[in-house]
Amino acid sequence: MSENKRQLKFGAIVHGIGGSMSTWRHPEVQSDASVSFDFYKRQTLKAEEGKFDLVFIADGLFINEKSLPHFLNRFEPVTILSALAAVTSHIGLVGTISTSYSEPFTVARQLSSIDHISGGRAGWNVVTSPLEGSARNYSRGDHPSHPERYKIAAEYLEVTKGLWDSWEEDAFVRDKESGVFFDPEKLHTLNHQGEYFSVQGPLNIGRSRQGQPVIFQAGSSEDGKNLAAQSADAIFTGQETLADAQAFYEDVKKRAIQYGRNEEELLILPGISPIIGRTEAEAEQKYREIADLVTIDKALDFLGRFFDHHDFSQYPLDEPFPELNDIGSNSFRSGTDKIKKDARERGLTLREVALQAATPRGNFIGTPEQVANQIEEWFERKGSDGFIIHSDLPSGLHDFVDLVVPILQAKGIYRQDYEYETLRENLGVPIPQNRYQTKTVNV
Amino acid sequence: MSENKRQLKFGAIVHGIGGSMSTWRHPEVQSDASVSFDFYKRQTLKAEEGKFDLVFIADGLFINEKSLPHFLNRFEPVTILSALAAVTSHIGLVGTISTSYSEPFTVARQLSSIDHISGGRAGWNVVTSPLEGSARNYSRGDHPSHPERYKIAAEYLEVTKGLWDSWEEDAFVRDKESGVFFDPEKLHTLNHQGEYFSVQGPLNIGRSRQGQPVIFQAGSSEDGKNLAAQSADAIFTGQETLADAQAFYEDVKKRAIQYGRNEEELLILPGISPIIGRTEAEAEQKYREIADLVTIDKALDFLGRFFDHHDFSQYPLDEPFPELNDIGSNSFRSGTDKIKKDARERGLTLREVALQAATPRGNFIGTPEQVANQIEEWFERKGSDGFIIHSDLPSGLHDFVDLVVPILQAKGIYRQDYEYETLRENLGVPIPQNRYQTKTVNV
Repeated sequence: MSENKRQLKFGAIVHGIGGSMSTWRHPEVQSDASVSFDFYKRQTLKAEEGKFDLVFIADGLFINEKSLPHFLNRFEPVTILSALAAVTSHIGLVGTISTSYSEPFTVARQLSSIDHISGGRAGWNVVTSPLEGSARNYSRGDHPSHPERYKIAAEYLEVTKGLWDSWEEDAFVRDKESGVFFDPEKLHTLNHQGEYFSVQGPLNIGRSRQGQPVIFQAGSSEDGKNLAAQSADAIFTGQETLADAQAFYEDVKKRAIQYGRNEEELLILPGISPIIGRTEAEAEQKYREIADLVTIDKALDFLGRFFDHHDFSQYPLDEPFPELNDIGSNSFRSGTDKIKKDARERGLTLREVALQAATPRGNFIGTPEQVANQIEEWFERKGSDGFIIHSDLPSGLHDFVDLVVPILQAKGIYRQDYEYETLRENLGVPIPQNRYQTKTVNV
Repeated sequence: MSENKRQLKFGAIVHGIGGSMSTWRHPEVQSDASVSFDFYKRQTLKAEEGKFDLVFIADGLFINEKSLPHFLNRFEPVTILSALAAVTSHIGLVGTISTSYSEPFTVARQLSSIDHISGGRAGWNVVTSPLEGSARNYSRGDHPSHPERYKIAAEYLEVTKGLWDSWEEDAFVRDKESGVFFDPEKLHTLNHQGEYFSVQGPLNIGRSRQGQPVIFQAGSSEDGKNLAAQSADAIFTGQETLADAQAFYEDVKKRAIQYGRNEEELLILPGISPIIGRTEAEAEQKYREIADLVTIDKALDFLGRFFDHHDFSQYPLDEPFPELNDIGSNSFRSGTDKIKKDARERGLTLREVALQAATPRGNFIGTPEQVANQIEEWFERKGSDGFIIHSDLPSGLHDFVDLVVPILQAKGIYRQDYEYETLRENLGVPIPQNRYQTKTVNV
């Protein structure tokens, strides 16, 4: 195994009873897992046993009675990540926080605080909140339009990055003899005055181990890709085929280069839901067990979520997918565009679209060797720099760690152990230098 | 020891290098304690060993170069409390969050999430943010006036309490067989439309073990006392003498009764800084070691903090305390009024006021027996229902747990072990029933 060989990066989504409508009904699922700290701890420790770079906590800011079961009753990301920081030692802790419905001073503090608590393992999935209902939970008249949300996000990132530079690395002298606690020349007041935010600073927490948490971006729209190419360290994306993944990979890396960045400093991590069996047949059987839990009415509800809770039960099930015009275009735009296009091109019925959306089959189903080989192929052929694993069933993560990881390690494309203590170093994305720092500091 | 004897309640402020200007210089202090998770964990576990009801994390939202060392670089409360939840089992976790600079939907979620993670141990110290500079970190033109901040706080509490009732206790059915995840009749949408907030709901996390976190209030102004008497479960207050404490105790309990509450359901917990020695002389010596670390310029800075960073170095040190008119009246109003009144009545110089403010001597200095007796006296004579211990030195908490707690236990006025798992039950304040719950639930 060569020291210099490019290495896979892995994240694990931990999300209680799961990201689909009906998985909670499966016999193996602990039906209150979404609010069980023991469950989150167990899954995270399993991912850490598998030397995963990070766990990932997704989020949303609006529910109604049609929302996914997991969304109705789940942990808030800042709190669960902080709790997980206390019981882990190496794995990164990445969570979704919206730039449309939060305050940069608070979020910069909380993320820096998690970075301090964890010794340099914090990460932030920057989202702009797709759900229009979010505005009604946050005393706002209207949900900002898609382009405006991305303008807000760009300024928000500018502010938080500025706040994280409030204190230079060696600002805190702490000399008991002289009574000098800090060097005032290494304290910087941001004084940001922008279109959406006015934030004076300084931040009331010092520079953390990573300087800044790792920035994830998960939007796949044009705006999302540009924000990521400009400001993110990693992209969490959904890609159905290797060809799609390669096109996305090439597209985003090119944009990063156009923004003057080194393409290796922006990682592309598609989400996959591997289903692993001792035999192909066993893996297929596991998939069927999950798919069979979904009824057509639940599948229609699930589909509706992407279209701002549009009611699909009004259309005939076995006729072509309905014409929706603009419905859904201000929420998960890239996702809804894809569903519409796919339905049109393949001539799918509403029933077919709904069941497929509710239980996407994915490509990563098979024996441990088959799944490992597919991962290797996507990785080597530049479809990805690694993957975010979101298993429908909790045992999927355990199977992956126990059965697939050793094969990838044997292939020499995945670490045997953590190389570093911080998430940035393990991911191979640079620790940003403080903008005011004039010389290298040995800490 | 009688089962029915009224019992003391204790909290411990954990605050890194301490709440005074110069304690960090003391030889025993770990000078980066304010951002050391190991330190917070160690102190919290010590308080838990002493069967304390809770740890308390203070906070603020604005700093400048004159702020207390601890304020410049410290953990954010939501994150550190969540982390501490993961490594403790019985102690309550209470933190300061401002109602002037946060969103009720997010704060309600985060507190409920901590309550879920900890199995019912979350508490919230509701503050309105005294520091005027906070507005400049939160894109606001002006810091709201003192009365307006309390109007905002009252509506904010109404919203969060409403959101915490989104889901009845037994709303989540989770019947795998039938596929029913929750009972829609037990889901309630708040639809709050008020003067300051419009929040639709429902909250995207279910009812937690305590129903609502324990509500603390720490303001001692008229507005603060009324808010506490109406809405809080406990008050954290500063009282210099037993007579002051008794007057405050009687005043607030009366107000609670006027709001139709049972006076036992509102706990009065003064903050004290006990200094314990094997002999009186040793205790005095410990106090001098702390006081001698403070220089007069640091003491003036410290005093300035309460007066919105007013510059006291412009006045002569050994003349009567200057006339300040309205300076400081929109920040820590009750504190600044008290300082002004005290200086006037006792004819103190600026130097005297500043040094006293920077290192208040307090009444709880002496041998373990002396301190225990004083605590008993305040408790039995209705000056308090317990205390929040904020030791200047970390060893102060250890001394208190090792030396004073056993004496109080022997007197029969303090628990030998935790009686319950939740903070509300240990404090003896009721778990609020969900407003929509029509019958008793056995969970």
